[in-house]
Amino acid sequence: MGYRFVNDYAEGAHPRVLELLASGGKMQEPGYGYDSLTARAVELIRRETASPDAAVHLVSGGTQANLTVLASMLRPHQSVIAAHSAHIAVHETGAIEATGHKIHSCVSPDGKLSVDAIMEVLAEHIDEHMVQPSVVFVSQSTEVGTIYSKAELTTISECCRDKGLYLYLDGARLGSALTCPTADMTLAELSALTDVFYVGGTKNGALLGEAIVINKPALKENFRFHLKQRGALIAKGRLLGAQFVALFEDGLYFELAAHANAMAGRLATGLTTQGIPLLVPQATNQVFPILSNQRIAELESDWGFMVWARAGEEHSAIRLVTSWCTPVDAVDAFLDALR
Amino acid sequence: MGYRFVNDYAEGAHPRVLELLASGGKMQEPGYGYDSLTARAVELIRRETASPDAAVHLVSGGTQANLTVLASMLRPHQSVIAAHSAHIAVHETGAIEATGHKIHSCVSPDGKLSVDAIMEVLAEHIDEHMVQPSVVFVSQSTEVGTIYSKAELTTISECCRDKGLYLYLDGARLGSALTCPTADMTLAELSALTDVFYVGGTKNGALLGEAIVINKPALKENFRFHLKQRGALIAKGRLLGAQFVALFEDGLYFELAAHANAMAGRLATGLTTQGIPLLVPQATNQVFPILSNQRIAELESDWGFMVWARAGEEHSAIRLVTSWCTPVDAVDAFLDALR
Amino acid sequence: MGYRFVNDYAEGAHPRVLELLASGGKMQEPGYGYDSLTARAVELIRRETASPDAAVHLVSGGTQANLTVLASMLRPHQSVIAAHSAHIAVHETGAIEATGHKIHSCVSPDGKLSVDAIMEVLAEHIDEHMVQPSVVFVSQSTEVGTIYSKAELTTISECCRDKGLYLYLDGARLGSALTCPTADMTLAELSALTDVFYVGGTKNGALLGEAIVINKPALKENFRFHLKQRGALIAKGRLLGAQFVALFEDGLYFELAAHANAMAGRLATGLTTQGIPLLVPQATNQVFPILSNQRIAELESDWGFMVWARAGEEHSAIRLVTSWCTPVDAVDAFLDALR
Amino acid sequence: MGYRFVNDYAEGAHPRVLELLASGGKMQEPGYGYDSLTARAVELIRRETASPDAAVHLVSGGTQANLTVLASMLRPHQSVIAAHSAHIAVHETGAIEATGHKIHSCVSPDGKLSVDAIMEVLAEHIDEHMVQPSVVFVSQSTEVGTIYSKAELTTISECCRDKGLYLYLDGARLGSALTCPTADMTLAELSALTDVFYVGGTKNGALLGEAIVINKPALKENFRFHLKQRGALIAKGRLLGAQFVALFEDGLYFELAAHANAMAGRLATGLTTQGIPLLVPQATNQVFPILSNQRIAELESDWGFMVWARAGEEHSAIRLVTSWCTPVDAVDAFLDALR
Repeated sequence: MGYRFVNDYAEGAHPRVLELLASGGKMQEPGYGYDSLTARAVELIRRETASPDAAVHLVSGGTQANLTVLASMLRPHQSVIAAHSAHIAVHETGAIEATGHKIHSCVSPDGKLSVDAIMEVLAEHIDEHMVQPSVVFVSQSTEVGTIYSKAELTTISECCRDKGLYLYLDGARLGSALTCPTADMTLAELSALTDVFYVGGTKNGALLGEAIVINKPALKENFRFHLKQRGALIAKGRLLGAQFVALFEDGLYFELAAHANAMAGRLATGLTTQGIPLLVPQATNQVFPILSNQRIAELESDWGFMVWARAGEEHSAIRLVTSWCTPVDAVDAFLDALR
Repeated sequence: MGYRFVNDYAEGAHPRVLELLASGGKMQEPGYGYDSLTARAVELIRRETASPDAAVHLVSGGTQANLTVLASMLRPHQSVIAAHSAHIAVHETGAIEATGHKIHSCVSPDGKLSVDAIMEVLAEHIDEHMVQPSVVFVSQSTEVGTIYSKAELTTISECCRDKGLYLYLDGARLGSALTCPTADMTLAELSALTDVFYVGGTKNGALLGEAIVINKPALKENFRFHLKQRGALIAKGRLLGAQFVALFEDGLYFELAAHANAMAGRLATGLTTQGIPLLVPQATNQVFPILSNQRIAELESDWGFMVWARAGEEHSAIRLVTSWCTPVDAVDAFLDALR
Repeated sequence: MGYRFVNDYAEGAHPRVLELLASGGKMQEPGYGYDSLTARAVELIRRETASPDAAVHLVSGGTQANLTVLASMLRPHQSVIAAHSAHIAVHETGAIEATGHKIHSCVSPDGKLSVDAIMEVLAEHIDEHMVQPSVVFVSQSTEVGTIYSKAELTTISECCRDKGLYLYLDGARLGSALTCPTADMTLAELSALTDVFYVGGTKNGALLGEAIVINKPALKENFRFHLKQRGALIAKGRLLGAQFVALFEDGLYFELAAHANAMAGRLATGLTTQGIPLLVPQATNQVFPILSNQRIAELESDWGFMVWARAGEEHSAIRLVTSWCTPVDAVDAFLDALR
Repeated sequence: MGYRFVNDYAEGAHPRVLELLASGGKMQEPGYGYDSLTARAVELIRRETASPDAAVHLVSGGTQANLTVLASMLRPHQSVIAAHSAHIAVHETGAIEATGHKIHSCVSPDGKLSVDAIMEVLAEHIDEHMVQPSVVFVSQSTEVGTIYSKAELTTISECCRDKGLYLYLDGARLGSALTCPTADMTLAELSALTDVFYVGGTKNGALLGEAIVINKPALKENFRFHLKQRGALIAKGRLLGAQFVALFEDGLYFELAAHANAMAGRLATGLTTQGIPLLVPQATNQVFPILSNQRIAELESDWGFMVWARAGEEHSAIRLVTSWCTPVDAVDAFLDALR
């Protein structure tokens, strides 16, 4: 059986993450995020985001992060604007609605939300018979691997500030967005443009863990109550702290993401060389080649991937995801198999 | 600084847990609990509970388990009956209410719920102007370390079946309950008496993890939807699977719990020998000595513990919790310090 | 100032409704829907719908009915499929999401939901990472005044039964749908095709009131708990009972709706005669003429209506709604004003 | 069959209420509370409460008012403090919990909440593992007919302001509280002591209707969104407006309440004269005589009342409620029947 390009969480954690996790096992530490490793992780993230006043909280997963953050931001009558392919809109089993809030799903072929789409939602929601759009949700990178440029995110950020909306960025795949060849934004710049965002660890070499960064002062208050209420406050917070220390103390986070991007780039180049079209141009660690359904059926017996979308009668796009530890040999073997 | 008897999650995980966690790091596995380690953990738990048809799901923490299970069991107008000191009633920041449900808090000096208390709630809730009590919630061991005997749990179980109530048991400290000297029930017997329960790992040597066991067929259906919606479906499920394999493949779970109980027993014996009274008789890994407030103030500079409750004008009960790795020397040093 | 064609609830109630409401003022009756007038209304509605076993509950408004019914039908992970213009999707301030459930908004130019749209939602929601679509929501007549034919509703009903979905019909304007010239379905036939629906009184001559009709046995159980929990159980139920008795004991409900339709038909004929195009063909008590923005601005000073949608650069569609007591003179005067 | 002393909503509405309701039936009015009758009612209530800046909203019932107001006041992690017999705690089918919030039920023999009880809840809720108590809920009069004196309500109000809690008063039976012989507070004084309260119409001569009065500026904002979301925005708001105009334009509200109180006083005096003890001293329109169970059984065939609570082995307290139109003859006949 060949490599599984199904997702970026199929492997365990990077050895340095595991090593730090295992060290000091019997040492006693305060619980619920008050341990020394979490304190160090928080400092590293504040430094890396150039956000010394940010509130940083570590949680176990992306859905957990999204539902806790959004429920803490919204009053009962308020709603979230997102791209129609957004993780919260499709792949979280109604987690946001379960906290009481509507998501406006805006059609977006490239997975990115535009200011026009935001303005259209605002224009349609004008009185108390309708919800009050209050948070803009974006993902960096998006569900189809595209990224917002600095200019694009700046425009959205300005629109939000102008219209009194909060801007929340889901960074499940933030590493790949920051380190891809077309990236033009640092973590610090991105932090300055958003009210809240999270730095995803699970899909970039951690066992589990996302670091929520809250910049907006009003949103910091009482956030630990929200974490506890949603079951997001881990008793042995050191587990999360250790991982983010390992990822950020020597730049491992960026190295791992860059590797995943390089492997995806190698896939994209190889595919294009073979004349295979891509559904969207490859930018980060996801590649969407369009193949005949027959060829896809043949590949499925040996390789792991997801069939993403139909592309005409006899073709479909598949999704190939690379990870922090995808071997270059696996990429080359897959490209060979396509010849 | 002396040992911290503050809780049973101050240390990391047992070395065998960490070892299994670290093994096979780069091996690819399916996500979200479909990995081979989770499959093995599920089989071990089914065997240990003698519940071959049980649905077993691993989640990251107790509040997570409680809110997901209860929200999956209840219709909007239904409620939960619990002891007034129950974790869900006091220490989960309204997590159950946040899913829409009332908790009936029944006064209980020893932390245990009685059939009389259940019947009283039922007698008071008779029509559609009131909620419909539908689930009975018990903890084994309870918040004050007491345990239900097999006879007591059987009586509650029969009451529930008779009255059409579900019985859910919170096993955050199930290990200590099953291995304490007064225990008269096996895991299999306990499983047969409940509709749903969870086996707590976080407080018994795991880094994090609770194993939810669903016996009632109607409650098994669609449970993974509930897990995902509440943010409880971990991408790298192997993390949880590995820990429960380590805990259950060779009886480590019971060894660790027995150690914690032994340390608490040693504390209780030592305290009693010194003439220090206990708030409730020690049964599991929690001990509640009553000391003068002055003595407590003196101890606080050197030792970790929680002041639990006032006991008259000049005395209070403190809570001492022992864990899977509390050193016997720490216990003896603490007893010495009291002399 | 001319007539206001803004909505169908601008006038009070029909005199026969008010008369019955006022009669027997000091007579004592049981509360919360157990009064004799409600009992009689329930019998009349069961007879009219040929649904002798239906559970019938009277509530104060459409949003109230929708949120109570849908919350009673759905488990936490389940969702509702509706047309994108559906009242629940746009004009209820997120009332359904506030009970925890996602609404799938299906694009529909004529306000009607098709089996194709339902099947597409089902095809996209295949596992526990996504919500589980469980209820189909339709309105008769729709937000743009169109109606489902008997054949169309039968097809949807069969699809629902085939796929295990509930079918719920919002009948805020059911009177106009049943009595319009193109109607081909009786109330009894419509009842047989749905699991739950409501007969709207507020928009057809009552002061307030909607009659929820539950056909599906499993959905009848405990419904009064849901009503009470959502604040929908009116203490003096006679208020609602009296109105539905007045509307249904002598066919007043159908007379009033037919009048509203006749007035809308007169408007549509007059507009068409003048060469003014309609956005959608008029069927019930709503008419959507397309006028130049300048003409609309002129009309606004003298007449009441809503600007519905842009229709090119310089034109818009307006919405004209007729009611149970729109005077024929008002219609003619408006048509004159357009000349 | 004799009179039913079961509740104060068994009769319809006062003739002046019905008369105003019926007048102007065909006149067109804006919907959803923007009509002229509601505007007039709002002005009358502002005047009567001496709260010219208050936001006043009319809704259809008490549960509706309570759930909408409380959900608008609270963030997800916040809770409400109430007496254990409070309507929201017992008789609203978990309506408040269904919006996501815990209610702290404080034991109170006389139905009144004390500052001590509030302080005890605050003392027990100290960190993010517990909910954050944020609103104090009181009823005037209480479920057992007792009232807060001006001094008592002032003390609670000061405590709330001191501790950063909102004070919300449920006035379902506010009329009887304001007009009973022991009343020492005007509506204006009560308004000045609370952040939000409602003036109950349903139990004092209206068909249905409660007037929510919001004094706290921060709580006024966006309240109509909350009303709409909870199904509390009535299309024909005139229905509610007309009733409050009738009740407040000439003091009818106070007359009706005074009558109910007088009838209850007559009952209490008669009972006491016959040597029948009362469970709590009669203050407003509820009387709780203690009778032998045998005598109660005899009375039940001819009279309507509720058996309230056991009082020893062979006796029980029954609840007698008088209303705005309880006839003096009914009271005397009942007293005769007891002889």
